[in-house]
Amino acid sequence: MTVDSREIDKFLVELLQNVGKSLRDDALKKKSVDTKKNRNDLVTNFDKKTERYVNSELKRAFSEATIVSEEGYGDLVTDMSGLVFFVDPIDGTMNFVKRGDDFASMIGAYIDGKPLIGAIIDVMGNNIYHGGKEIGLFINDERIDIPRNLPLVEGLVDVSAPMALANKFNVQDVIKKSSGFRVYGSAGIIFGHLLTGKEVMYMSYLAPWDLAAGRVLCEAAGMSVVSIDDAPINMLKSQVVIVGTQKVVSEALTTVKTR
Amino acid sequence: MTVDSREIDKFLVELLQNVGKSLRDDALKKKSVDTKKNRNDLVTNFDKKTERYVNSELKRAFSEATIVSEEGYGDLVTDMSGLVFFVDPIDGTMNFVKRGDDFASMIGAYIDGKPLIGAIIDVMGNNIYHGGKEIGLFINDERIDIPRNLPLVEGLVDVSAPMALANKFNVQDVIKKSSGFRVYGSAGIIFGHLLTGKEVMYMSYLAPWDLAAGRVLCEAAGMSVVSIDDAPINMLKSQVVIVGTQKVVSEALTTVKTR
Repeated sequence: MTVDSREIDKFLVELLQNVGKSLRDDALKKKSVDTKKNRNDLVTNFDKKTERYVNSELKRAFSEATIVSEEGYGDLVTDMSGLVFFVDPIDGTMNFVKRGDDFASMIGAYIDGKPLIGAIIDVMGNNIYHGGKEIGLFINDERIDIPRNLPLVEGLVDVSAPMALANKFNVQDVIKKSSGFRVYGSAGIIFGHLLTGKEVMYMSYLAPWDLAAGRVLCEAAGMSVVSIDDAPINMLKSQVVIVGTQKVVSEALTTVKTR
Repeated sequence: MTVDSREIDKFLVELLQNVGKSLRDDALKKKSVDTKKNRNDLVTNFDKKTERYVNSELKRAFSEATIVSEEGYGDLVTDMSGLVFFVDPIDGTMNFVKRGDDFASMIGAYIDGKPLIGAIIDVMGNNIYHGGKEIGLFINDERIDIPRNLPLVEGLVDVSAPMALANKFNVQDVIKKSSGFRVYGSAGIIFGHLLTGKEVMYMSYLAPWDLAAGRVLCEAAGMSVVSIDDAPINMLKSQVVIVGTQKVVSEALTTVKTR
């Protein structure tokens, strides 16, 4: 399959502009909230509505593509051949519900398993991070300055709260070597921080739609994206992932304990 | 001493507007960074410059007032009589240095020990939270809707990272009862979240200048501000403080362990 990465990038940016506009209108509205795996795993009517909209627009424009998405309106995808989109309609649903800020919407495009284009909108900040290795990286229309390859001691790290509090994988030793610990509560928001050098590492248990767009963008920025056991990333399953500058990820991998 | 709280409020807002303008210009500049108590306790040339400017403006307008401030340009204050200003020129210096966002500047005014006016600027967001019990609460020129008295189970909590990671005072049990844990890394930024209902509790070890403005504002919003041993707040010393909705603070006090 031949694809035009510039055309896909443009399409995803315009799609996320529409999503952003709609979610900003919805952010203050009363939401219908359900729980999924536990009382703090939320889904709202707006997650579902947004995913239906995004998936139908993608199918309309790219009829041969398959879609992996969070809320169940995607395809059953068992291999990465062809053009595959990963859709997270609202990333950081807890922030969407409780704060009304620091939530994102994300789409990642892969071709035959290879990262192609990522697009993430910080909805309330109204900034879209997008691009890929071929076409470069942008915030809205401006090129992103690639962040410096800082070591752990010089940067802030964001780690999933349950993992950090329970010191899973000995992660508190990673945190102690850093400049400080932050928890923003949305992978998409944190990928934006990594791309602009505000944080140097993110570690969390991520589903494919949590990781897909951020992986494309961070790899294109020269950062490392690895699974905690240093195995290749598998885009069809959930896994514990470390994303960050090359120096930080290599320090983190020597500090975490996986058994 | 008679004071006009409306006049003080207006003065502090204008002062913080100037501070904000100057710090936004400085946020991207190269900073001269020193450490204080440990390698992650930072102070920059801009903290010092801002404090000198704020203190001199306050002394010019309120010559009989005394000033308690972070970087050493204030007075030696041993009691709370008369008009006392608490100044934190840059709150969240680590965020200022590493992120260039989510840092604040804060001024709290007390009269004979009683909270009078608080003013906090989210510098990069360019929002000033200000007011007090007498005159009401504002974001810039708009009145703040007092946040609802939510219980712990319905809101996000922000706890100082070292305290949360080490489970000091059994605080992880408080976190587990909440909707989720966030770490934004600046007291001033978090007070803004509390005042707008984005978070329901903040717990940290705070110096007088970290707490002064936020205490005025949060108490005026009907929230509770207590020391962890439920003793009265002492504005002339550092202490572990819990700030939040009345329901949350009362739940937190029954969950934390201080011995």
